[in-house]
Amino acid sequence: MKSYDVIIIGGGPSGIITGVTGKKQNPDKSFLMIKPDAKGLVPCGIPYVFHDLESVAQNAMGPKPFVDAGGEVLLDSVIKVDSENKTVFTEKGETFQYDKLVFATGSEPIVPKFIKGYDLNGVKYIRKNYNDIEKLKELTDEAENIVVIGGGFIGVEVSEQLAKHPGKKVSLVEMEKYCLYRAFSADMTARADEIIRSLNIDLRTSTKVVEIEGENGKVSGVLLSDGSTIKADIVIASIGYVPNTQLAKDSGFQLNNNQAIVVDQYLRTTVKDVYAVGDCSSTSGFITGRTDSIMLASTATAEARILGYNLFSINLLRCFQGTLAVFSTEINNKVFASAGAIEQVADAANVNYVIGQFEDVDRHPGVLPGTSKLFVKLIVSPSNGTIIGGEIYGGKSVGELINVISLAIQKHVNVYELVSFQIGTHPLLTTAPTKYVLIKAAENAIAKLRAK
Amino acid sequence: MKSYDVIIIGGGPSGIITGVTGKKQNPDKSFLMIKPDAKGLVPCGIPYVFHDLESVAQNAMGPKPFVDAGGEVLLDSVIKVDSENKTVFTEKGETFQYDKLVFATGSEPIVPKFIKGYDLNGVKYIRKNYNDIEKLKELTDEAENIVVIGGGFIGVEVSEQLAKHPGKKVSLVEMEKYCLYRAFSADMTARADEIIRSLNIDLRTSTKVVEIEGENGKVSGVLLSDGSTIKADIVIASIGYVPNTQLAKDSGFQLNNNQAIVVDQYLRTTVKDVYAVGDCSSTSGFITGRTDSIMLASTATAEARILGYNLFSINLLRCFQGTLAVFSTEINNKVFASAGAIEQVADAANVNYVIGQFEDVDRHPGVLPGTSKLFVKLIVSPSNGTIIGGEIYGGKSVGELINVISLAIQKHVNVYELVSFQIGTHPLLTTAPTKYVLIKAAENAIAKLRAK
Repeated sequence: MKSYDVIIIGGGPSGIITGVTGKKQNPDKSFLMIKPDAKGLVPCGIPYVFHDLESVAQNAMGPKPFVDAGGEVLLDSVIKVDSENKTVFTEKGETFQYDKLVFATGSEPIVPKFIKGYDLNGVKYIRKNYNDIEKLKELTDEAENIVVIGGGFIGVEVSEQLAKHPGKKVSLVEMEKYCLYRAFSADMTARADEIIRSLNIDLRTSTKVVEIEGENGKVSGVLLSDGSTIKADIVIASIGYVPNTQLAKDSGFQLNNNQAIVVDQYLRTTVKDVYAVGDCSSTSGFITGRTDSIMLASTATAEARILGYNLFSINLLRCFQGTLAVFSTEINNKVFASAGAIEQVADAANVNYVIGQFEDVDRHPGVLPGTSKLFVKLIVSPSNGTIIGGEIYGGKSVGELINVISLAIQKHVNVYELVSFQIGTHPLLTTAPTKYVLIKAAENAIAKLRAK
Repeated sequence: MKSYDVIIIGGGPSGIITGVTGKKQNPDKSFLMIKPDAKGLVPCGIPYVFHDLESVAQNAMGPKPFVDAGGEVLLDSVIKVDSENKTVFTEKGETFQYDKLVFATGSEPIVPKFIKGYDLNGVKYIRKNYNDIEKLKELTDEAENIVVIGGGFIGVEVSEQLAKHPGKKVSLVEMEKYCLYRAFSADMTARADEIIRSLNIDLRTSTKVVEIEGENGKVSGVLLSDGSTIKADIVIASIGYVPNTQLAKDSGFQLNNNQAIVVDQYLRTTVKDVYAVGDCSSTSGFITGRTDSIMLASTATAEARILGYNLFSINLLRCFQGTLAVFSTEINNKVFASAGAIEQVADAANVNYVIGQFEDVDRHPGVLPGTSKLFVKLIVSPSNGTIIGGEIYGGKSVGELINVISLAIQKHVNVYELVSFQIGTHPLLTTAPTKYVLIKAAENAIAKLRAK
C-alpha cells in the first residue's frame, strides 16, 4: 500500500493552496492530491464565461502550482476514509495511507427538490465543474428565454453576463425584497436592483417560483407566486450551495447543522491528523464566535494558507479570529462590496451599532473622465467606536477600498483612530484628501456616538 | 478692534479642513480665515488642467465648506503677527485679535537662482494660485517647445498632460538617474521612465540644466550638462517646494532647517495658542521621529483634522505617530504608489529590512478585458516582521491598494499576520484569492526572514 505524508481530497482553491503552502513549508514530505477531474475552474470567474471571457478554457485553473512545488496529483475519487487506520480508498480501487489528511471537498449547488418540475430537462446549476459549465455555456448560447432563480451573487452575475447577448430574454426571480440581501443592507441592494432593472433583465423580486413547467419532460416555463408565467428554454437554479461532505459524514466525521465538517481555528477536525478547509469546513462569526456559513474562495484560501503553514505543528498563529466575509461584485460597471457585520448581520446577532456614512466621488475634481459616485457606510460599535462592518458602492476602486475596511475590522481599528489615518490620494484614482470617504464616514459615526 | 476665537491664515486644504472641522466641533466659537485670493485650486489636480480637464475653473476649490459651517472669510494678507498681544495685522490695514491662531500658509515653488537665466521671461512655476495657473495654461496652449525641469511628481504629471497635445515638443530634464526617485526604488522608477519615454516626451535623466538661454530677455532654450541644447518657448521649473514661512519667521516663530514652523504631534508651535498645519509646518519620520519634509495634501488634511478636533483641548488622540508619506501617480494609465519607508528612506535612516515582493495581474483570470500587471513590494523589519513600507505598480486599483498597505504600516501589521488576512476578491476587480499580491509578498518576506 502506497503511503503519503499528506493526502488532500479535492483540487479547488483551498486544496491547491493547502498543497502549495504545505509542500513549500515541508519540501521533504510527500503530498498527494486526489481529485476527480483533470480540469478545474476559477470559481468566481464562472459567471464571466457567459460573456466577458471568450471561452470556458480561459477560466481554467488546475493544480499546476502544486505540481510545480513537488506535489503529486491522482485523478480519482475517494470513496471511504478509515481514520483509525489512516487509510483512504478510491473509486478506482486504490488504497493509500496518510499521516495527515485534508478534506477540501468544496460545496455543491442546492437542488430545489421542493419546487415541482425541478427534475425537468433544462433545469441547470452553476456547478464548479469544467465539463458541466462548458455544456451549460453551449445551452445558454442556443437558448433565447433564460430564467435564473435566485438573486445572490452567482444569479446576479450570470444574469448580467447573459443579458449582454442581444436577442436573449433573461429573467431573474428572487423571493426576497431585493437581490443580494445577504451581503448588503436595503439601501445598497435597492441601488443594485435599480441597475439590474436598467439592463436587459426582467427582475422579479418578492416573488417565488411555484413550479417549473415542462413539455415532454423539457422545461417550457416558470410559474410564479403572483400567478404569472415566464417562458423558459432553460432554467438556471442558483439558490445557494451546501458543503460537499457526504464522504466525511459516511466516514464518521462530525458535521455541524449546516452540514459542514466541524473544525477549530487551525482547521483541525475532531479527529487527530485530519483537517478540513474551504467550503466543506465550518466557519464562525468574527464577533460572536457562533457557527455560521461563509463560502467564499477568498475565505477558503485564507484558511488554506493557515493550514499549509501548520500541517505538522502550529508555526504561524492565526492572528485574525473568526470568519470575516468580504463580498464584492460588479454590475454594469458599478461595484458593490461589503465586509464584516452589515446591519442585518449585526441585528441577527443582537449587536448594537451606529452607522457612519458619506457619499462623494472617486476622482477629484469630480469632473474628471471616468468619475463615479462613491458611497461608504461603516458599522461601528458604540462601546469604543470599533469598526465591525462596512459597505461600499462605487466604481472599480471599491474592489480594493473594501480591503482597507476589511483590514480595519480585523485590526480592531476604531473611528477615532481613523480620523488621523494617513491615506494616499490622487486626482485620477481617489476621493479628494479633504473628504476621503472612509475618514468622513468615521467622522459621521463620531458625531452620532457623541449624540448618543 | 475686531476679535475672533480662531483665526486661520491661509485657505488651502489644511486651512479649509482645520476650519471646517474646528467650527463643526465648536459651533459657538467664531472663526475667521484670511486668504489673499478668492479662488483656490485643488492642489494635486493642477497638472490635469493642462489636458484632461477642460478648464482651470474645473479644478477650482474654495472655502465654501468652511463658510457653510459658519466660518467667515476675509480676502486679505496677514503681514505681521504679534503673539504676545494675540493680534494680527493685514496688508489692507486691518487688525484682529485672536484666541487661537493657525498658520496654514502652505508652500511655494523653489526658484532656481543658481541657474543662469532663471529670471528670463518665459521661466514659469507651478504655483498653487488660480490666476497664475490660468496664465500658464494660456502660455502652454500657445507654446510649441516646452522644457520641464525636474522629474518629481509635478514635473512628470505636467509633462504627461502637455505631451497629450499633438504637435507639442515636451522635454523633461531630471538630474538624478531616474524620475520620481524620492518616492520609489530604482526598479520602480525604471518602469516609470520607460513609460515616460514611450510617450511624446524627450526625457533626459542624469542631466543637469546648466543655463536657461534667452533672446531679448525671453527664454529661447536650455543648455544641458551634456553640452546639448533644447529649444524652448517656455520653461517650467518644478524642482521642489519650500514652506511659505516668511511671515512666521518675521513674527519670531521657530523654524526648523527646512524652513518649516516647528510643531508638536498636535500641531502646536512653541508659542501658546498658535498652531501651524500643512506644508508650512514641520513633520517627523514615523520610524525614527527625525525631522523630515513631507508636503502632500493628504498629509496636510490628516493634520488638519487632528488640529480641528483639538483646537481648544486634546479631544481626539493622534493614534498614528509621525508622518507617513503616501504617494501615488498615474502615467499613461499605469499607476505607481508608495507608502512609508521605501528602500532608500530605510537606508538613509540606517533601518535594516528585507523585501517581500510578488507580481501578478489585477484581474482573474488574467485574460479579462482591462487586466494590468500588478507588482507589490513590501519593506519589512527583520526584528518582528513588521511592515514599514511598500511600493506598488499596476492599474487603477493601486490607488486604494496602497491604502491597505498604508493602514497596515500605521497599525504595525506584521507579515505573519498578513498571511491570515481575509481579503475580498472579485474576477473583475482584484488578483485571484489564491495569489492576492499583498499576501504573496508577505509570504515571500517570511521565506527571506527564515533564511536569514
